[in-house]
Amino acid sequence: MIKKPVLLACAVALAALPLYAQEGKPEYPSPPEIVAKAKAEEWVAIAPADLLVMDLAPDAKGRARRVVIQLMPAPFSQGWVGNIRKLAAAKWWDGTSINRVQDNYVVQWGDATEKKALPEGLAVVPESEYISKVDHVLIGTGPTIHEPDIRLVQTSDRYAAGSGFTAGWAVAFDRGHGRFSKRDLAKNPQSDISAAWPVHCYGMVGVGRNLSPDTGSGAELYTVIGHAPRHLDRNIALVGRVIEGIEYLSSLPRGTGPLGFYDKEEERVPIASIRLASEMPPAADLKFEYLSTESESFAAYADARANRRDAFFNVPAGGADICNIPVPVRRKAE
Amino acid sequence: MIKKPVLLACAVALAALPLYAQEGKPEYPSPPEIVAKAKAEEWVAIAPADLLVMDLAPDAKGRARRVVIQLMPAPFSQGWVGNIRKLAAAKWWDGTSINRVQDNYVVQWGDATEKKALPEGLAVVPESEYISKVDHVLIGTGPTIHEPDIRLVQTSDRYAAGSGFTAGWAVAFDRGHGRFSKRDLAKNPQSDISAAWPVHCYGMVGVGRNLSPDTGSGAELYTVIGHAPRHLDRNIALVGRVIEGIEYLSSLPRGTGPLGFYDKEEERVPIASIRLASEMPPAADLKFEYLSTESESFAAYADARANRRDAFFNVPAGGADICNIPVPVRRKAE
Repeated sequence: MIKKPVLLACAVALAALPLYAQEGKPEYPSPPEIVAKAKAEEWVAIAPADLLVMDLAPDAKGRARRVVIQLMPAPFSQGWVGNIRKLAAAKWWDGTSINRVQDNYVVQWGDATEKKALPEGLAVVPESEYISKVDHVLIGTGPTIHEPDIRLVQTSDRYAAGSGFTAGWAVAFDRGHGRFSKRDLAKNPQSDISAAWPVHCYGMVGVGRNLSPDTGSGAELYTVIGHAPRHLDRNIALVGRVIEGIEYLSSLPRGTGPLGFYDKEEERVPIASIRLASEMPPAADLKFEYLSTESESFAAYADARANRRDAFFNVPAGGADICNIPVPVRRKAE
Repeated sequence: MIKKPVLLACAVALAALPLYAQEGKPEYPSPPEIVAKAKAEEWVAIAPADLLVMDLAPDAKGRARRVVIQLMPAPFSQGWVGNIRKLAAAKWWDGTSINRVQDNYVVQWGDATEKKALPEGLAVVPESEYISKVDHVLIGTGPTIHEPDIRLVQTSDRYAAGSGFTAGWAVAFDRGHGRFSKRDLAKNPQSDISAAWPVHCYGMVGVGRNLSPDTGSGAELYTVIGHAPRHLDRNIALVGRVIEGIEYLSSLPRGTGPLGFYDKEEERVPIASIRLASEMPPAADLKFEYLSTESESFAAYADARANRRDAFFNVPAGGADICNIPVPVRRKAE
């Protein structure tokens, strides 16, 4: 018995295979097809000052390992983001290392000696900054409500009254004071969203800290390399997301010490440098853009992520976890 | 400025730190503490015939790499599970390889040549087997309803009418014919659950296939190494989960070909053997057990996963994604 090639299809692969069209069935574009057809004006350039570039020491075969992180915009986490810009300008991370790789959880980096002096002038950011006031347009999928300032907010988030997208980022939110139930949200569609916060999706970058009331300076950072640990939302500051090179972090050997810390000094992965793209020469070729989450193409993309109808799929899900709708980011064509 | 040790805490670490007790605050056990205190009779032994043992070729430093998979019990996916037992008995996978590692998605293995003859007598399993009839007790967290055969079913699953646990596994479900809304579910708590299916959480193992109506034989397998791709639920057969050694898969270099397939033959990771534990010598030391999802300790554990109150956390989430409540599995003490 000879078996044909057996593939587990994903978004990227079958984009070019409109297999059903020839059988007279409607042809549904896949999420990547929708993104590929987005208009030029639906893409938003990422400012060089919002790009943090981490160069690890070359790997065992001498190959470069560059990780690019997009920092969060206002109103989110700007105290920590400001500290991170100062730390990068001071070249503080050069010579530090990746010290922790915990499977299905996080990769963490910083000063393993815990003795390196921090630059002057870093802010001490209060816990209240874990959440922000937001009144942007939000887009989500799934059970929805409509109201003046909000388009298509999803209200079946397990970790919040609702979740959606604003200015290129996934956020969750409550209303008024404290936590509102989904029923409250449906009954009072005109009430303001008073508290929103970024969510711990795959690739998001956050700030390590000690026990409360410590909130961390931004010198100790981690990124998510597993299923979204959303229970960390509102408990730790999120400051950005990896937009290129996460495989250099997610494929590192797992640490065998407690919490996935590397047991031995020689296991740590040296960080050659961390810089803002705005402080690097233009030749570094660091121009990126994201698909506006307020664009029509993003709405179509989010709907397609929630209702896969391309050739591989038999049953569209009818909904999608906010962390299963990653905001498309790409290198900007010159 | 000298910085104290900065840790991103997780379930495992702070289990031993009842920091609040001395300040007179109530002391809440963490999820691992609850699991550690579960009674011996709340654990269920996993039968050796349900354990699939994959030995990869040793790594570059000569270290062994063993991955242990627990196969799903009836009524789920038994056609494919039967095929997998036959393939293991025939030593069919010996000399095959891991051929695909796609970041935040899957690791996939099987016969890269696509020419190896399959053993006689494998079942051709119909697509209707992607779902099963289930009437077990289910346990979940979050907004709940109560009914005769179901305890604490969560009804805010993004991909189904609800989700919960049965006989040690996370499942999602609909009711009656087709998809029921959450409102239907709340209105008709006595109606039967007629369709349930396993969910694509981190570490779940599934069956690669071609386009419908192909459902795959079980010879081509994959495991999830990223955020749960729940849109695959009901579209591909799930047959088990990795219970030990997933780090040998999740930390492999990512493939640079389409879909994360390895571009070059020499990048593939050889599989030395795949065997059922029931066909290996007792000295192989392969005794595992899982925490019964019908036990009181599991209910307490699931609640604690959804409402973290241990020292590191400021804000309990009030809910948890079904894939953020992994069923505890451990090696059985002799």
